[in-house]
Amino acid sequence: MAVSKLNDEDRATALNHLPKWTYDSDSGGIRRTLKFEDFAQAFGFMTRIAILAEKADHHPEWFNVYNRVEIHLTTHDAGGLSQRDVEMANAIDAMTA
Amino acid sequence: MAVSKLNDEDRATALNHLPKWTYDSDSGGIRRTLKFEDFAQAFGFMTRIAILAEKADHHPEWFNVYNRVEIHLTTHDAGGLSQRDVEMANAIDAMTA
Repeated sequence: MAVSKLNDEDRATALNHLPKWTYDSDSGGIRRTLKFEDFAQAFGFMTRIAILAEKADHHPEWFNVYNRVEIHLTTHDAGGLSQRDVEMANAIDAMTA
Repeated sequence: MAVSKLNDEDRATALNHLPKWTYDSDSGGIRRTLKFEDFAQAFGFMTRIAILAEKADHHPEWFNVYNRVEIHLTTHDAGGLSQRDVEMANAIDAMTA
């Protein structure tokens, strides 16, 4: 099933429920930065996300330095934010709650 | 033991032995981009590096999207490239040889 980009209204509604994420109008994606106690904690978190991403066949763009992880979610096939990004963001939030 | 930045001559010698790495004069570090078959391969590689980095207490700055991993090595305490970066780069090269 093709994944489509959320329209402006649906995107606004989704973002209201994702206060920890920032919409990036340049990329059409959303970003969140997380800080952990140390590298082992940060990479442990990344490993959990990696398994989730592989199962969902939807992968983040992400950057890590020591205890910091910067995540960018977008759906290239849809040209912007899709429901799959929203689901991934919710899963990430639940994992770090 | 404090880690010191390589002087220009030692850095040039080290870079001669690291043809897959590019010196970034802005950051004072070195960069290498690797491509894998898919995300699972890329993240598997990252996991091996993460364990190595944790053992060495010397962590990369890195970015991943799907099958691509961009690695940046520098030594913040030394203000640039140190022997620890060279050792990490060699270990990464050996792992992907």
